[in-house]
Amino acid sequence: MATASNATWSPLFKEAVSTDFRDFHECLDQDKRLALHDIAGSKVHARMLARAGVLTPLEHDAIQNGLDTIAEEMRSGAFQWKKELEDVHMNVESRLTTLIGEAGKKLHTARSRNDQVATDIRLYARTELDALGDELKALILAFIDLAERHADAIMPGFTHLQVAQPVTFGHHMMAYAEMFLRDLERVGQARERLNVSPLGAAALAGTSYPIDPDFSARELGFSRAFRNSLDAVSDRDYVVDICAAGAIIMGHLSRFAEEVILWCTPMFDFIEVGDQFCTGSSIMPQKRNPDLAELIRGKAARAIGNLATSAALMKSQPLAFNKDQQESKPPLTDTLENVRGAVAVTAQMLPTIKVRTERMRAAAEQGYSTATDLADYLVRAGLPFRDAHHAVAAIVAAARDRGYATLSEMPLAALQAFAPVISDNVKDVLTTEGSVACRSHRGGTAPCQVRRAADELRTLLE
Amino acid sequence: MATASNATWSPLFKEAVSTDFRDFHECLDQDKRLALHDIAGSKVHARMLARAGVLTPLEHDAIQNGLDTIAEEMRSGAFQWKKELEDVHMNVESRLTTLIGEAGKKLHTARSRNDQVATDIRLYARTELDALGDELKALILAFIDLAERHADAIMPGFTHLQVAQPVTFGHHMMAYAEMFLRDLERVGQARERLNVSPLGAAALAGTSYPIDPDFSARELGFSRAFRNSLDAVSDRDYVVDICAAGAIIMGHLSRFAEEVILWCTPMFDFIEVGDQFCTGSSIMPQKRNPDLAELIRGKAARAIGNLATSAALMKSQPLAFNKDQQESKPPLTDTLENVRGAVAVTAQMLPTIKVRTERMRAAAEQGYSTATDLADYLVRAGLPFRDAHHAVAAIVAAARDRGYATLSEMPLAALQAFAPVISDNVKDVLTTEGSVACRSHRGGTAPCQVRRAADELRTLLE
Amino acid sequence: MATASNATWSPLFKEAVSTDFRDFHECLDQDKRLALHDIAGSKVHARMLARAGVLTPLEHDAIQNGLDTIAEEMRSGAFQWKKELEDVHMNVESRLTTLIGEAGKKLHTARSRNDQVATDIRLYARTELDALGDELKALILAFIDLAERHADAIMPGFTHLQVAQPVTFGHHMMAYAEMFLRDLERVGQARERLNVSPLGAAALAGTSYPIDPDFSARELGFSRAFRNSLDAVSDRDYVVDICAAGAIIMGHLSRFAEEVILWCTPMFDFIEVGDQFCTGSSIMPQKRNPDLAELIRGKAARAIGNLATSAALMKSQPLAFNKDQQESKPPLTDTLENVRGAVAVTAQMLPTIKVRTERMRAAAEQGYSTATDLADYLVRAGLPFRDAHHAVAAIVAAARDRGYATLSEMPLAALQAFAPVISDNVKDVLTTEGSVACRSHRGGTAPCQVRRAADELRTLLE
Amino acid sequence: MATASNATWSPLFKEAVSTDFRDFHECLDQDKRLALHDIAGSKVHARMLARAGVLTPLEHDAIQNGLDTIAEEMRSGAFQWKKELEDVHMNVESRLTTLIGEAGKKLHTARSRNDQVATDIRLYARTELDALGDELKALILAFIDLAERHADAIMPGFTHLQVAQPVTFGHHMMAYAEMFLRDLERVGQARERLNVSPLGAAALAGTSYPIDPDFSARELGFSRAFRNSLDAVSDRDYVVDICAAGAIIMGHLSRFAEEVILWCTPMFDFIEVGDQFCTGSSIMPQKRNPDLAELIRGKAARAIGNLATSAALMKSQPLAFNKDQQESKPPLTDTLENVRGAVAVTAQMLPTIKVRTERMRAAAEQGYSTATDLADYLVRAGLPFRDAHHAVAAIVAAARDRGYATLSEMPLAALQAFAPVISDNVKDVLTTEGSVACRSHRGGTAPCQVRRAADELRTLLE
Repeated sequence: MATASNATWSPLFKEAVSTDFRDFHECLDQDKRLALHDIAGSKVHARMLARAGVLTPLEHDAIQNGLDTIAEEMRSGAFQWKKELEDVHMNVESRLTTLIGEAGKKLHTARSRNDQVATDIRLYARTELDALGDELKALILAFIDLAERHADAIMPGFTHLQVAQPVTFGHHMMAYAEMFLRDLERVGQARERLNVSPLGAAALAGTSYPIDPDFSARELGFSRAFRNSLDAVSDRDYVVDICAAGAIIMGHLSRFAEEVILWCTPMFDFIEVGDQFCTGSSIMPQKRNPDLAELIRGKAARAIGNLATSAALMKSQPLAFNKDQQESKPPLTDTLENVRGAVAVTAQMLPTIKVRTERMRAAAEQGYSTATDLADYLVRAGLPFRDAHHAVAAIVAAARDRGYATLSEMPLAALQAFAPVISDNVKDVLTTEGSVACRSHRGGTAPCQVRRAADELRTLLE
Repeated sequence: MATASNATWSPLFKEAVSTDFRDFHECLDQDKRLALHDIAGSKVHARMLARAGVLTPLEHDAIQNGLDTIAEEMRSGAFQWKKELEDVHMNVESRLTTLIGEAGKKLHTARSRNDQVATDIRLYARTELDALGDELKALILAFIDLAERHADAIMPGFTHLQVAQPVTFGHHMMAYAEMFLRDLERVGQARERLNVSPLGAAALAGTSYPIDPDFSARELGFSRAFRNSLDAVSDRDYVVDICAAGAIIMGHLSRFAEEVILWCTPMFDFIEVGDQFCTGSSIMPQKRNPDLAELIRGKAARAIGNLATSAALMKSQPLAFNKDQQESKPPLTDTLENVRGAVAVTAQMLPTIKVRTERMRAAAEQGYSTATDLADYLVRAGLPFRDAHHAVAAIVAAARDRGYATLSEMPLAALQAFAPVISDNVKDVLTTEGSVACRSHRGGTAPCQVRRAADELRTLLE
Repeated sequence: MATASNATWSPLFKEAVSTDFRDFHECLDQDKRLALHDIAGSKVHARMLARAGVLTPLEHDAIQNGLDTIAEEMRSGAFQWKKELEDVHMNVESRLTTLIGEAGKKLHTARSRNDQVATDIRLYARTELDALGDELKALILAFIDLAERHADAIMPGFTHLQVAQPVTFGHHMMAYAEMFLRDLERVGQARERLNVSPLGAAALAGTSYPIDPDFSARELGFSRAFRNSLDAVSDRDYVVDICAAGAIIMGHLSRFAEEVILWCTPMFDFIEVGDQFCTGSSIMPQKRNPDLAELIRGKAARAIGNLATSAALMKSQPLAFNKDQQESKPPLTDTLENVRGAVAVTAQMLPTIKVRTERMRAAAEQGYSTATDLADYLVRAGLPFRDAHHAVAAIVAAARDRGYATLSEMPLAALQAFAPVISDNVKDVLTTEGSVACRSHRGGTAPCQVRRAADELRTLLE
Repeated sequence: MATASNATWSPLFKEAVSTDFRDFHECLDQDKRLALHDIAGSKVHARMLARAGVLTPLEHDAIQNGLDTIAEEMRSGAFQWKKELEDVHMNVESRLTTLIGEAGKKLHTARSRNDQVATDIRLYARTELDALGDELKALILAFIDLAERHADAIMPGFTHLQVAQPVTFGHHMMAYAEMFLRDLERVGQARERLNVSPLGAAALAGTSYPIDPDFSARELGFSRAFRNSLDAVSDRDYVVDICAAGAIIMGHLSRFAEEVILWCTPMFDFIEVGDQFCTGSSIMPQKRNPDLAELIRGKAARAIGNLATSAALMKSQPLAFNKDQQESKPPLTDTLENVRGAVAVTAQMLPTIKVRTERMRAAAEQGYSTATDLADYLVRAGLPFRDAHHAVAAIVAAARDRGYATLSEMPLAALQAFAPVISDNVKDVLTTEGSVACRSHRGGTAPCQVRRAADELRTLLE
């Protein structure tokens, strides 16, 4: 068992750390995402210390300049990460002391890695959530655009993947706009809930220095400072909140992906997705696969796994901080980055979709899709709904037996044999256009309602 | 393979349903929770139909009376559930038609089971969430009470389950109050997001009748009606939202449960939980087990499983309604009922806790818990924090080697050997009382801050 | 807070148990599944105690008779369950003492509820796994039957849900037979691993009585007795093993269910499932939904949730027994019962499937499904595979542009323009029959291989 | 939207691939683990093709040499990975063609990336499982060593974390040896089940070339070749099998980790873990945290998440290959690598544990841990067990009230007041040594049984 220096912590440690253990718990690559947030937090912490008289103005200036230099080194790639310094925080502090000397050792006054890392993660997550919110808005707008372009296009509406009733493609697209609008709210609420500063909670109990947590919170853009130091360092709720929001977003994307895959199969052939988002085969020359959609379906599974990880991780942990919490970072970053990517690439893919309106309309005629309209016609003619439902079922059975592909094709007399109240005007309700047009209440599938809903959502997004 | 009548649906079905299949998909016991909500929804639907002229006043009155009768039968236990009628909706409609004749068959006009069941579940979930919100408030108040009662009691604050710094028991309890306050917000947001009426979306496309979805929404206490009928029948986001909130709440309870279990073991012996929430052993006469706490830990695992179920269930489902969604009900009801139970029983258990303040204080002296205070003392005397940290580590190592159980016991000269700046006044910072008292900024562990936080949270809850 | 008697345990308890807590932890309905297994275990335990001289022959006979009476009462429904006796074990012991007096109080000698419940669950799980194994065999045979019936039927083979190459329906069915054959192995291995007797481990440490754990193990059909008493009472691995096997089985069923749903949509129309396993709609008279398949997809999500529960439950539990383990029973029983139901009903459904061979064959012609065969033809004519692949891709592009639906329709000259080596005999490789027939190596899709594989699997099952 | 060349696939693609999409689906870093396995598979494939006459001897030799060169480049780090070539397979094939010209383009004859990647992953997983098996054996041996060293050390045995009965530390350690022995079986069974060659299944249907899948299987060390080509390319069961085994292993490790954490807290102070596996604090100079144990607890959560991912991923996927399956790799590799690391580092940590036997023994005296022994004494004296249990409970209550810390301290007369049958020899059963010594049946906690079990397991491992 090889070992390495353990002196970071204290002279209490007589044996050097096992290098296998160090490799096992090392997460520097994972943590580099936090580096600039760590520096931002340290800069504010130093200002707070200076205001409190814990740092002299000279020390404070040296720290600010040193941290700016380090941030610059990181942006340019010049920063030398040292694995043996274990984490981002120690890498920064060590570099700072090299750069500015003694003052660097004072930066960690009145804080602990526990409140420091909690601050860093919250800043990171907030930044990512803001970007995700923007991507979600772009996605919703892309769905609205597609919906408006095809507000009148008739397609089969499915339940149980059986043809149920005709709907408009625009209406179908607007269903997704609604889902992602709820997601935007979820993302916003997760953001607000995590936007509380833990800085000043120190290891777990607060600190004996005359700190001003409200100042730090304000300067870092948090809505308020922690109210309880134990909670501040032990809370990882936001990881679960974000993983839950991410799993729901990926769930919505996976539903759309499933439909894209179905609609691209030659059996459906409802749409064509742009080459930019498809791949071919190494063996079958004719293949053109909607890979993006399938990948999103796959990554939806990953978001579920991350959610399970995040919830299982925090279960039964005693207060306050435990090393287990290091493992809250992988599901958080994996979810945030995958969800952002999936949302962004889907939004890019939407405008490349070509809708085969004639294929969809033809499919909507299948499966006796206007049977409900006929039942409603009978109700208007006086039958109780339940009786009308049975009469139409018998008509459909007869149509199927006699080889009529649609109810429109069935002769009037044949219809009347089942329901004498049917008269010549029945033809109007048996067309798919008629069917969608008459569902013109708010939220219905009629083209006018699609346009109205598109307008309404655009306004809500503004 | 035995079979049963399949005639509910239509004459299209020539073979009777397999009874094994029927048993497999039957969920009447599960669904009875929805029955009174189903009737409430139907009563509003009938009023809407009457206003729209679809029902005559006579039909409407008959339906209202019939539904009232059925509700009464359900409450009294007189209602005869019929498994062969498959679900709650068909049981109610069938009974209604028996009671009032033809008019009963008209109730299902302009709706489908798809929007009906979505309405029922939302009403059920809303009711449960409101009750859960009340239970959470009671739980938070119980933590605040306990915190105030023991605002001054000193206990060891742990990180990594090692003694870190002294904290107050009240401060520790207030950390839980903070967690459950966030949960209250989660529950409220989940409630608001699901409080949208799907009634009128019908099967998936809306309906050709002149319905007024806004009226139905308003009368049922929803904040608005659906904006997209496809989304209205296919959305089960709220199941995931609730399972996520439930898993987080159970996560918080499991953390407290873990601590209760630790504090009850003779090795800690910090608290005693009332007999009412403990159990004994069938073989070991002396046992007294904190069973409630362990059971809550176990049920936290179940909440995680329900969350995984709910997210996996909706993944990759094409629009609009699929039978898969029937399976959204078990995780929803199981989570809601378990979480409510866990929150309520924990709130009852809290006042029975006896705190052994002397044991806790003695434990807080262990583990050199005021070492950080000594480091801070050295910083105030002029050492950079990082150097002070190393000096104190050396002092602790010496104390350990020389058999001093606490830093207070170490002679001044021995301390000065490591850090000459130490003077006689160091004793003040080495006591646990001194340590907690000086963490008196907002959010710190000082008794005065515990009382302040308790007041603040009480106000927030009002 | 209402309370109830707590006297089961010991005089140490001065306060009665909270009735809310009792309701919260009560699981009698859940546990009734264990009752007959509990009696079987007790009967063997009594015999072992009699052999060891701990029970007199008279006591032993009284206990055996008493337990037989109780088993009879349970089978007939006459047994009076008492919620206040908390669990199955106490219900049985209490009834036994009522029936036979003092001897009843001796049955619990040399055991604890910890080893008793572990024994009961293992016996229950073993019985269920044996039954599940039988159902799996029936399912595999049903797939083999279907495969043989349609060994020659050509259908499109899909990758990415795009038409890839023609395959036979029989080959496709045999893929499922392979999956469930692996599942049979999983179930068998889970059964073997759990078939170890914990009886005699007592509370956690074994017992001071002269017990014979090997005798108990043998009599109960276990393959051996526990080797470590702490492990015997704390092990719930088998719950995770079973939940994992169950999730994989449901995963396989869900894949088949997905295909049934696709194949039943009018866009595919490849098969028709018997009425016995479909349902209709409350609003759309023409609907005929493959509900069973969708329900199975849904229940696959539940199996995943149960798996997550079982794994999260045992995480971080210290030895030996903790109340958390009570929560291992719901995921276990829910998975076992749902999986058995799903396997059994699917096996019943398979013979009702009508395969529309003409529709499938027509679909297999689409999408230039024999393009790979053409590339292979070119390779045989001397081109490197990668070049052949590119030439055929160009041919497919031309066919698409010029409106040829299949490669067979393309004139020879047109083909030769891209690859001069093509000669008249190319037509043989461009048909779907030719394509499947030439994949006649072991494991390939040729009809002869389907029949061979069917024979092989039948033999393996014997 | 930037784009990149899409020409890998075919001239069917007119638009270049979106670079954002390419970045989103790129997984080259993930896949580099497969590279040497990919080459090993290709070498065997080439030999099979040469034997079948598809490759000439010259072509075959060129391919073998080229692949050897590439393997060498990879091992030395000289290989130039190209992101635009999408995956490992294309990188190798492209480099091969550069190295050896035309023959390189022939390597992909009679296979597809679908069977190729399936082969690679199985080879990778098999290698990892073999290594994991070795690590598990080392871990079991380390537990056996520790058990033998402390076969006589008495500690409190806990149920519900309450002191239950005295056990030996060796017995406690052997419980873990049993768990990991089951895990070794799990790993072995997962290995056997996946050890089937998919090579020759091609895209999904097999191939028209005269391949010999049995040859390829044999040469690659597989136990047999696939029996169904569709199953061969679509099966990812082994990912779930491995993630399940991994979650159970991590579950066992997390239970031990929980106990290490408890035993290291000053309240217990039962053991000390070597410095090599602990860390300190950035703020609290006295801290020495058992970080490894906590990290393992955290990583156990990750294994649960990976398991949920793997199961959710495959749910409802139609046959045969879908891009979703790319996402089966991250949970597989993450689980395998984390579990191996955790097992290996724990095995290293075990010998550094110092057991504080006096502390443990003292703790075992607490909590009236020999109460069961007293009850058993009364049974031997003629009381029915249930009555003896009640009598002892009353004795314990009295001891507690009167301030006796152990039953041994209680005067004989006081005991006799509750149970007159008690005589002077009772003292023998009330000591912790007596208690453990008398549990000397197979599987019991007596030191002799610990040694016997250690011997037995060593033999089983050989």
